[in-house]
Amino acid sequence: MNLLEKTLRQIEPQDAPSRAAARKRLEQLTMPYWALGRLMDLAEDLAGITRSIRPPVARKTIVTMAADHGITASGVSKYPQEVTAQMVFNFVNGGAGINALARLAGARVVVVDMGVASDLGQLASEGKIVSKRIAPGTANFAIGPAMSRDEAVRAVEAGIEVAMDFAGSTDVFGTGDMGIGNTTPSSAIVAVFTGSEVGEITGRGTGIDDAQFQHKIAVIEGALRLHKPDPKDGLDVLSKVGGFEIAGIAGLILGAAALKKPVLVDGFISTAGALIAQALSPLSTQSMVAAHRSVEQGHRLALAHLGKQPLLDLDLRLGEGTGAALAMHHVEAAVRILTEVATFEEASVSKAE
Amino acid sequence: MNLLEKTLRQIEPQDAPSRAAARKRLEQLTMPYWALGRLMDLAEDLAGITRSIRPPVARKTIVTMAADHGITASGVSKYPQEVTAQMVFNFVNGGAGINALARLAGARVVVVDMGVASDLGQLASEGKIVSKRIAPGTANFAIGPAMSRDEAVRAVEAGIEVAMDFAGSTDVFGTGDMGIGNTTPSSAIVAVFTGSEVGEITGRGTGIDDAQFQHKIAVIEGALRLHKPDPKDGLDVLSKVGGFEIAGIAGLILGAAALKKPVLVDGFISTAGALIAQALSPLSTQSMVAAHRSVEQGHRLALAHLGKQPLLDLDLRLGEGTGAALAMHHVEAAVRILTEVATFEEASVSKAE
Repeated sequence: MNLLEKTLRQIEPQDAPSRAAARKRLEQLTMPYWALGRLMDLAEDLAGITRSIRPPVARKTIVTMAADHGITASGVSKYPQEVTAQMVFNFVNGGAGINALARLAGARVVVVDMGVASDLGQLASEGKIVSKRIAPGTANFAIGPAMSRDEAVRAVEAGIEVAMDFAGSTDVFGTGDMGIGNTTPSSAIVAVFTGSEVGEITGRGTGIDDAQFQHKIAVIEGALRLHKPDPKDGLDVLSKVGGFEIAGIAGLILGAAALKKPVLVDGFISTAGALIAQALSPLSTQSMVAAHRSVEQGHRLALAHLGKQPLLDLDLRLGEGTGAALAMHHVEAAVRILTEVATFEEASVSKAE
Repeated sequence: MNLLEKTLRQIEPQDAPSRAAARKRLEQLTMPYWALGRLMDLAEDLAGITRSIRPPVARKTIVTMAADHGITASGVSKYPQEVTAQMVFNFVNGGAGINALARLAGARVVVVDMGVASDLGQLASEGKIVSKRIAPGTANFAIGPAMSRDEAVRAVEAGIEVAMDFAGSTDVFGTGDMGIGNTTPSSAIVAVFTGSEVGEITGRGTGIDDAQFQHKIAVIEGALRLHKPDPKDGLDVLSKVGGFEIAGIAGLILGAAALKKPVLVDGFISTAGALIAQALSPLSTQSMVAAHRSVEQGHRLALAHLGKQPLLDLDLRLGEGTGAALAMHHVEAAVRILTEVATFEEASVSKAE
C-alpha cells in the first residue's frame, strides 16, 4: 500500500459527539439564537474536525505550492513563465501579497517547489523553500497528458508529506498556489467534475483580453475532447489536465484530513485541488473550510460541487493563499466565540420569553 | 454655535492626492491588476480618510452604545427590557460576543450608557462604563415622540464627545449597540430615509414569531403615520422614532469623520445611526466603512442608501459591534497590502506582456 492509499484510509468523518457538544454550548451563549451565524456553523465544524470543543487553531501554516505549466506554450496567460520563479523569490523575500497577509494572520508561509521550470535548487539547499519537484513544469496538455499517472501519484504524495512534515507545528493549514497559466488546468478540472460548459467556468485569469479568452476556452475544450478525463478517477483527471501544484494542494488537503486538522482552501486553483481530493476521498471535504469566493468565473460552480459556502467574498483573484490567510481570522473568531463567550447562566442574563 | 454645528463644519471630503498616491502604489504591486479587489478599494479609502499613504490603524476602539426603548411596552421584542442592563454587566465582565471578538481584533471596548432604564451609576463611578445618560430610556414612540429635539441634539453630541475623548488613543473607531427593542426604531429610521414599505425593511430582530412580526410592522407603520418624520431633517427623524444609542452612534460617526479617522459601521442598528449621520452631514459617509451585511431584512436597503458595500456577509445579527470588530482585520489587511507588498520594480518581477 503506497502513502496515498494509506492516507485515504485514515480519513474519517467529523466527530458527531464533538459537534453536538459544541452546538449545545453555542445555543446557550448570551445572544439571540445562533446570532453569530456562519461563525457558529464554522465553530461546530472545527469541533467536529478536531474532535474537541476547544479546537486548537493558534499555529497556522499556509503552504504555497508553485509549479509551471506546459500549456503556457499555447498562449493562455499574459505573464511570461519566468514570473513563477520570480514570485518564488518574492515569497522568500517576504514581499508578496501572501507574506503581508500571513504576517497579519500570524501564519507561517511554506513555499514548495512542486515543479517550477527554473532551477530553484539554491533556495532549497538554503532551506528557504521545500523542494518536492516532480519535473520542470508539466507537459502541454493541448498535445498530450500533463503528466504521467505515476507522476500524479507522486505529486499528491508530496503534498501529503508536506502536511505530515509540518503537522507537529501546525493546528490549521491553508492552501496556496503560484504558477503562471494555472487557471487553465483549473478550469479544465472544474469543467470535468461539474460537467459544465468550458465557457461557463473559464475566467480571465490574470486579465487576458477577449481574443485570448476565446482562445483559452478553445484550448481547454480541445484538451477535454482529446483526453476525455474520467471524473470518477481523480488521478486520471489530474494526470491528463492538471498541474503539479494542484496535485500538491490535493495532497496537502488529504494529509490535513488524515491528521484531523482543518484546512482552509484558498481560491480557484486551490478549489481545483480540492476537487481532486474530493474525487479521491469524498470524506476529505469534511475537513475543508472554503476561504473565499474568487472573481474567477468557475469558482462558484466548483464550490457548489464541493458543497462549500465560502467565508469571504472580496473580489480577490490573486491566489498564493491570500484568501486562506484572511480567513484564518474567521477560524480564530469562531473558536473565540465557542470558548470565550459566556452562557446565559454564567452571565446571569434573562432568556427570551 | 453648539458642538454639533461645530463638528459638522469640520467634516471634509476624503483627500484626493492621498487616494491617488495610494492607487498609484497599489497598481504597481507584484500581482495582476487590482487582484486583491475590495481590500485595495478599502486601502484607497483609508488613505483618503486619514490623508496618509501609511494609514495608521493599530489602535482600535469599539464603542458599544447602550440604551432602552419605550417602544418595548408595545411588545416588539421577545426579550425583557432588563436584558439591556444585564448585557452591560456582561460587557464589563468580558463575557459577551463583542468582548471575545474585540480581544481577537486587539480592540478596546468602550461601553457607553446613553440611556439604559436601570441605574448603572455604580459601573460609571467605577470607570467601567462611560455615562452619557440622557434619560432612562426613550418614550414610547407609538404614542408620542421618542425624545425631544433638545434631547436628540444632546445625545448626538454625547457621541461626538466620546469620539473626541478617545481620539488621542484611537486610530480606527467601530460602532456597536445594545438595546432591547432597538431593531424597531432602526426599521422606522430606515423606512423614513429609504422611502421603502415598512414590511420590506422590517426583520425579526432577536427572533419574534409571525404574529409578533406583523404586530411590529403595524406599530412602526402607525408611528410613521402619527409623526410624519421629515427625511431631510435628521434630528426630526431621530427625535420622533429614534433611540439614544442610535443617536450616540450617529454622533460617534460624525466625531470620527471630523477627526479624519475611519469608523467601521457595524450592523443594522449602527447603519440606522449612520443614516442619521448622513442626513446631518452627507460628507460624513466618506469616513464610514460598512463592516457587514446583517440578516436583518432592511439592512441591504439601508446600506444602498448609504452608498456602501459591506466587507462581510456572515449571517450575523447580534450587534454590539461584533461585525465592526471582525472587519477591523480587513482594515489592517488593506493597510498591510498598501505598505508591505513589494512593487514589480522593487521585487524584480516581470510585468504582463
